[in-house]
Amino acid sequence: MAPGSVGIVQTQYYTFAEPPHELELESGELLGPITLAYETYGQLNEDKSNAILICHALSGDAHVAGYHSPDDKKPGWWDDCVGPGKAFDTDKYFVICSNVIGGCKGSTGPSSINPKTNKPYGLSFPVVTIADMVNAQRHLIDYLGIEQLLTVVGGSMGGMQALQWAVAYPDRVRSAIPLATTARLSPQSIALNEVGRQAIYKDVHWNGGDYYDSEFRPHAGLSLARMIGHITFLSDTSMHEKFGRKLQYGDKYGYHFKTEFAVESYLQYHGDNFIRRFDANSYLYITKAMDYFDLANGYGSLARRFANVKAKFLVISFKSDWLFPSYQSKEIVSALMANGVDVTYCDIDSPYGHDAFLLEVDRLTDLMRDFLKNVFVKAERELVSL
Amino acid sequence: MAPGSVGIVQTQYYTFAEPPHELELESGELLGPITLAYETYGQLNEDKSNAILICHALSGDAHVAGYHSPDDKKPGWWDDCVGPGKAFDTDKYFVICSNVIGGCKGSTGPSSINPKTNKPYGLSFPVVTIADMVNAQRHLIDYLGIEQLLTVVGGSMGGMQALQWAVAYPDRVRSAIPLATTARLSPQSIALNEVGRQAIYKDVHWNGGDYYDSEFRPHAGLSLARMIGHITFLSDTSMHEKFGRKLQYGDKYGYHFKTEFAVESYLQYHGDNFIRRFDANSYLYITKAMDYFDLANGYGSLARRFANVKAKFLVISFKSDWLFPSYQSKEIVSALMANGVDVTYCDIDSPYGHDAFLLEVDRLTDLMRDFLKNVFVKAERELVSL
Repeated sequence: MAPGSVGIVQTQYYTFAEPPHELELESGELLGPITLAYETYGQLNEDKSNAILICHALSGDAHVAGYHSPDDKKPGWWDDCVGPGKAFDTDKYFVICSNVIGGCKGSTGPSSINPKTNKPYGLSFPVVTIADMVNAQRHLIDYLGIEQLLTVVGGSMGGMQALQWAVAYPDRVRSAIPLATTARLSPQSIALNEVGRQAIYKDVHWNGGDYYDSEFRPHAGLSLARMIGHITFLSDTSMHEKFGRKLQYGDKYGYHFKTEFAVESYLQYHGDNFIRRFDANSYLYITKAMDYFDLANGYGSLARRFANVKAKFLVISFKSDWLFPSYQSKEIVSALMANGVDVTYCDIDSPYGHDAFLLEVDRLTDLMRDFLKNVFVKAERELVSL
Repeated sequence: MAPGSVGIVQTQYYTFAEPPHELELESGELLGPITLAYETYGQLNEDKSNAILICHALSGDAHVAGYHSPDDKKPGWWDDCVGPGKAFDTDKYFVICSNVIGGCKGSTGPSSINPKTNKPYGLSFPVVTIADMVNAQRHLIDYLGIEQLLTVVGGSMGGMQALQWAVAYPDRVRSAIPLATTARLSPQSIALNEVGRQAIYKDVHWNGGDYYDSEFRPHAGLSLARMIGHITFLSDTSMHEKFGRKLQYGDKYGYHFKTEFAVESYLQYHGDNFIRRFDANSYLYITKAMDYFDLANGYGSLARRFANVKAKFLVISFKSDWLFPSYQSKEIVSALMANGVDVTYCDIDSPYGHDAFLLEVDRLTDLMRDFLKNVFVKAERELVSL
């Protein structure tokens, strides 16, 4: 186990919204009971002022850091940033992460059993939004007895949740760190999501979402969707650096249709891997939630939507990210500043594209650690003076 | 019929490389007989100095301009640029375009009948390269009795052919106009092509390329490939302008998995349309030919590869093209200049992305018309002085 690891951790489960107290979704549909899978690291302090909520991206889960068993080879998805001495220092902070609703990593989603039918929901699961994901998280935060989060942080779809927290629960968020994200999904991103969904719909084994009892799964469609995703996570530059036109085997063109270039092999590997750990219907629901995300919708402008924001912000984008380009973070910064919100913005010159939010650990650690320290000191001072 | 149209045109066919005189491909395989579908517009002048070869892109064909019948609603794919008074003025020039080998628009490709088996080639068709396409075109140019082409012009994969002509047949090309293209396919483009191919491979109706006798075709895979393609033809900016987050029906989110955003509808329309006019195996062969394209391969550098080039060049790129970004055209320009080649370069500030080479008609017409006029005047002078 690497030094700085949080060690062995266990996923926990919280169930709420039992009928007749279902959660009302943005669509008007009711969902309940809802189980959230979550993990926590570090200790909640006495005045409950040191709680950090990490929100995961499209394919993430509640397992941010540490290992699930002594034999576990792979740590949580943001282990580089969560642990003793790391950006989210578990010696100082209490870190929480929960799997989103609609997901397939322990939280209620389309692959969960619908208690009304005793069968998996499939497409009868209601469409959820980023706001619904955040509303569900709020129930978990209530349950954990936390009045105000020190920060809500996340990259990509996790950043959307951080933004949503700041507008939906302004009194419960002291700060927010949206990374490599947007306040509104662009038509290009909707298009990329839609092609991924079409790949699943067109898979003969998808069967209208009803495949949980079948011996076949829509693996072909899901792996295609993931391959498209992986292209968008990298940049043109990082692909040149990582693969160039390198061949996977030998140094001569094969003039055939088998895997030939290293970049093809990389995509296939990631596509094949993904089907072992993800549910195709969850892919549909989560990409759809992203598509609907448009904070300004119904408010006239993003600046108006941010009118009630009380949190301090650290906004970070990456110059080579073409999935959520820097201009989208700049729109967030401008709209926050129009409301006099205390916002720090950093556009990091990284070649890694969208993936940079997981790879630029040193630079992110410097920025996030200092930002958090300042917010935490201020929080402590305020609580003492009460 | 619009003014400036070339009117009613007919596709013609030229067959060559009859066994035992097959064409030797880059792979070492032999292909023959080969039929090329082609069209011509305007008249070849007496000294045969006014011939222009237009090379088409991935999904193009020989039908560049005019109509196939009086009822034909849709003109050829570059009708805006070919006709009396247009960039390629058919009152002055003799314009030729042929469908590439490997294609499915009348030239020999995987859907053609293999005379040895009397069945469609399918995947037994040999893998072809851009150089092979150009070598086949050269036979057509020989047959038409043209010693030297006034220019070879094309966008995207058509531009690759223009570059290939200039290096493979330096004495037979007076000038070249590569538009929105590259001298070497990037790993990002290979990745995008590979996902398109995987969509076809994974389609249960593809059947290893053997589907011509079946009642089912790999339409699902081919339409997915095309949808990915259409995302790469547009730019983030042009998608904002063309669709934004506009809904296709009504003005409220539907919270379902049916078509909802205008951009989704656009992609589906183009995907569905494509399967009616294109062959899935041809898609595999042509994208593979693009993947292999790397002019510098075996020469140490692009500058060395261009050492024998005699043609004058007009290189055009588009600032918002992210499929073949401007830097790739600049690499071509630098390598040409290193050899003292007479090259004019223009990086057009268009929002239309890769599609700009088909849409920026006015700007292209100005540039290409003047360039051609100068090359033609010089050619005439040289021929008179002989």
